[in-house]
Amino acid sequence: MSLRAATRVTRSLSGRKGPRVQRGLASRSLKPFPSTDRLFEPAVSAGVAVMHMQSPPVNSLSLDFLTEFCIGLEKLEMDKGCRGLVITSSQPKVFSAGLDILEMYGKSPERCGEFWKAVQEMWLKLYGSDMITIAAINGSSPAGGCLMALTCDYRIMADQPRYTIGLNETLLGIVAPFWFKDTMANTVGHRTTEMALQLGLLYNPSEALKVGLVDQLVPEDQILSAAAQTMTKWLAIPDHARQITKSMMRKPTIDRLTSNRDADIQNFVNFITKDSIQKSLRAYLEILKKKKT
Amino acid sequence: MSLRAATRVTRSLSGRKGPRVQRGLASRSLKPFPSTDRLFEPAVSAGVAVMHMQSPPVNSLSLDFLTEFCIGLEKLEMDKGCRGLVITSSQPKVFSAGLDILEMYGKSPERCGEFWKAVQEMWLKLYGSDMITIAAINGSSPAGGCLMALTCDYRIMADQPRYTIGLNETLLGIVAPFWFKDTMANTVGHRTTEMALQLGLLYNPSEALKVGLVDQLVPEDQILSAAAQTMTKWLAIPDHARQITKSMMRKPTIDRLTSNRDADIQNFVNFITKDSIQKSLRAYLEILKKKKT
Amino acid sequence: MSLRAATRVTRSLSGRKGPRVQRGLASRSLKPFPSTDRLFEPAVSAGVAVMHMQSPPVNSLSLDFLTEFCIGLEKLEMDKGCRGLVITSSQPKVFSAGLDILEMYGKSPERCGEFWKAVQEMWLKLYGSDMITIAAINGSSPAGGCLMALTCDYRIMADQPRYTIGLNETLLGIVAPFWFKDTMANTVGHRTTEMALQLGLLYNPSEALKVGLVDQLVPEDQILSAAAQTMTKWLAIPDHARQITKSMMRKPTIDRLTSNRDADIQNFVNFITKDSIQKSLRAYLEILKKKKT
Repeated sequence: MSLRAATRVTRSLSGRKGPRVQRGLASRSLKPFPSTDRLFEPAVSAGVAVMHMQSPPVNSLSLDFLTEFCIGLEKLEMDKGCRGLVITSSQPKVFSAGLDILEMYGKSPERCGEFWKAVQEMWLKLYGSDMITIAAINGSSPAGGCLMALTCDYRIMADQPRYTIGLNETLLGIVAPFWFKDTMANTVGHRTTEMALQLGLLYNPSEALKVGLVDQLVPEDQILSAAAQTMTKWLAIPDHARQITKSMMRKPTIDRLTSNRDADIQNFVNFITKDSIQKSLRAYLEILKKKKT
Repeated sequence: MSLRAATRVTRSLSGRKGPRVQRGLASRSLKPFPSTDRLFEPAVSAGVAVMHMQSPPVNSLSLDFLTEFCIGLEKLEMDKGCRGLVITSSQPKVFSAGLDILEMYGKSPERCGEFWKAVQEMWLKLYGSDMITIAAINGSSPAGGCLMALTCDYRIMADQPRYTIGLNETLLGIVAPFWFKDTMANTVGHRTTEMALQLGLLYNPSEALKVGLVDQLVPEDQILSAAAQTMTKWLAIPDHARQITKSMMRKPTIDRLTSNRDADIQNFVNFITKDSIQKSLRAYLEILKKKKT
Repeated sequence: MSLRAATRVTRSLSGRKGPRVQRGLASRSLKPFPSTDRLFEPAVSAGVAVMHMQSPPVNSLSLDFLTEFCIGLEKLEMDKGCRGLVITSSQPKVFSAGLDILEMYGKSPERCGEFWKAVQEMWLKLYGSDMITIAAINGSSPAGGCLMALTCDYRIMADQPRYTIGLNETLLGIVAPFWFKDTMANTVGHRTTEMALQLGLLYNPSEALKVGLVDQLVPEDQILSAAAQTMTKWLAIPDHARQITKSMMRKPTIDRLTSNRDADIQNFVNFITKDSIQKSLRAYLEILKKKKT
């Protein structure tokens, strides 16, 4: 669990010869991403960004991480040359471990509220993005990590049976908020969501494919090339018509949070600062600590 | 078709040695349910009730039956020691035949209204139950019997091809109300519901599994042990988080009936007391009578 | 692409010996449909109409075509003797090519508005029809042709791999309106709709069956006999109960358009008369013209 946040964005602009544009967000370890050339250069007719999440050890979604993520996303969104975004992980075996528990344990209500607002912001920006968004899920992706994947337009998962994905909040004694639920129900339907959320189900890749939580499985070393292939298909669609269509599908779900944002924050803060919940989180952190040592 | 109503509830409380708590509701034939010991004793960490419906011959949902059912359910709901409920049938070959037609034929509007209110109450209590509810469907389950199964959290059906399940109201010339429809759509989706309700489809177990009307098939003699296994998994989830999650999934559907309850009763009474509908019901009752003789 | 519109309706009334009632709508080429006798005569207990769309070359939905279609539909709807409708195509290889692009290119806003109102009217009448409606999809069915099929109660498609079906509007740079989307989501669910509409996916018959866009595949020469078999099953259900059930399933979707009809027309007119959209349509028409020569 780490509070250090970093994402790395590699860009290739279509039709441009010469040096690729690469932008680092908090890019302490920025270096050219080896497979980018093969990935996006001649295949695409417009720019595609690849965002490599690298917040060791498990890409926890801390307040810092989320803030950087949103700033990076916003820049790409404003850049007319950028039409697509692939989100993947630089950390081994994990896509994202989800919300950083350290942001929810022993923090003031104000800080908890600020954190939750950043989680909302990430979801609002990503679920409502005008870009084509593809999650290249090259590791486990529980809770908030699963949510992040669910907000994308398409999900490709590494076919590694040890990896799991799902909204498993209830296992920790906490509850996925309504917009997590809405996003999952929009993807896999009401019944699968009802059972998965109640039981905090984590699916392995083939189970996730079967219920529709992910769209495609590939060997892990082919995940970015598979993302590139899919991106090419989506880039062939006129942006304007695709964006209006995407918005038509997602706007009612987005509006539900937008019009209840403050109440949702208050609800989260009230819940998470309860003694009983804080106790559950401490117990969970103890388990994590023991695992490490 | 019988107006005599009886349900039998067997309870085992977790961690308790010695005599199991057993409660009979209208328990004219209360006797220890043989497999209960093997079922719930050491496996569970909290109390689970098994409700055996025994209103010969076919567990028709009469006003008496529904009233007893709701009282029993309410008691279990208030009992903090009871976390799960398995509903099954003591009658051979039938889980429940659904609403008792004798309650709808030749009755005064007042009595019809009272009956319908009891049907609503059963659904409201069961669909909104804080307990983990599992339907162990050990026989056919048409119409209201199917509804009862659909309100549970999980459905296990005996893999006996002669058994059928479905909302087949249209076959009798009557109409499943909107909350039957909502419950089914929440389970199997809009399209399957649209076709099933229009055609009054009854599914055999393997068809029911395929469309998602039930979650699991097992040989009939293993249905309670399968229910116990599933219950164990659900009991592992913290109650509070599971209950909030369940409520989040089901509240909008429940609210639709709660805020339209009187209109729904009036609608039912107006419909069922029509001459043409009464004629249909009489014709159906004649067929049933002939079958018996 | 043709503005000439024609539909042919063949009727057989149950229990009637002697000459079948046949009605031609703009029936320049009205002749007895050979397989009608085998189709609907002794099998059905009430009248069923078969509507053969014959607007060469591809049954484009022009203003004339839609107007005739709606008048024909209304007559059948008012005819108490007619309980079911099969819609099929007399044109080879195509069910319907969808909205006539010539109605959207180079036309005045008023004319565009009139056209769109007719498209709405077709959908409202067909999706809300009291009759049992079956689409016998004996050819490709893109865009508006797919919508027409989706409004029916049941879809049988010829198992010919070259035929395709889908709402592919985005491929032309235009956008399927919300009620196209709602109709598709009611049929195949939110997620499949989201991806299909964004990508403008056209499915071949086996793909369409897999996602639930059609209900059944048969060899092309058996499509009307398959429709007759299905119709027989549906006719066995009491009309009144089936109609109320159908209305309960579809009314919320229909109400959304009914209460936004003018705004939806205005929205279409504003969009389609844009320079950029007109340019796209002209480019598309050029391609079609080149194909022909």
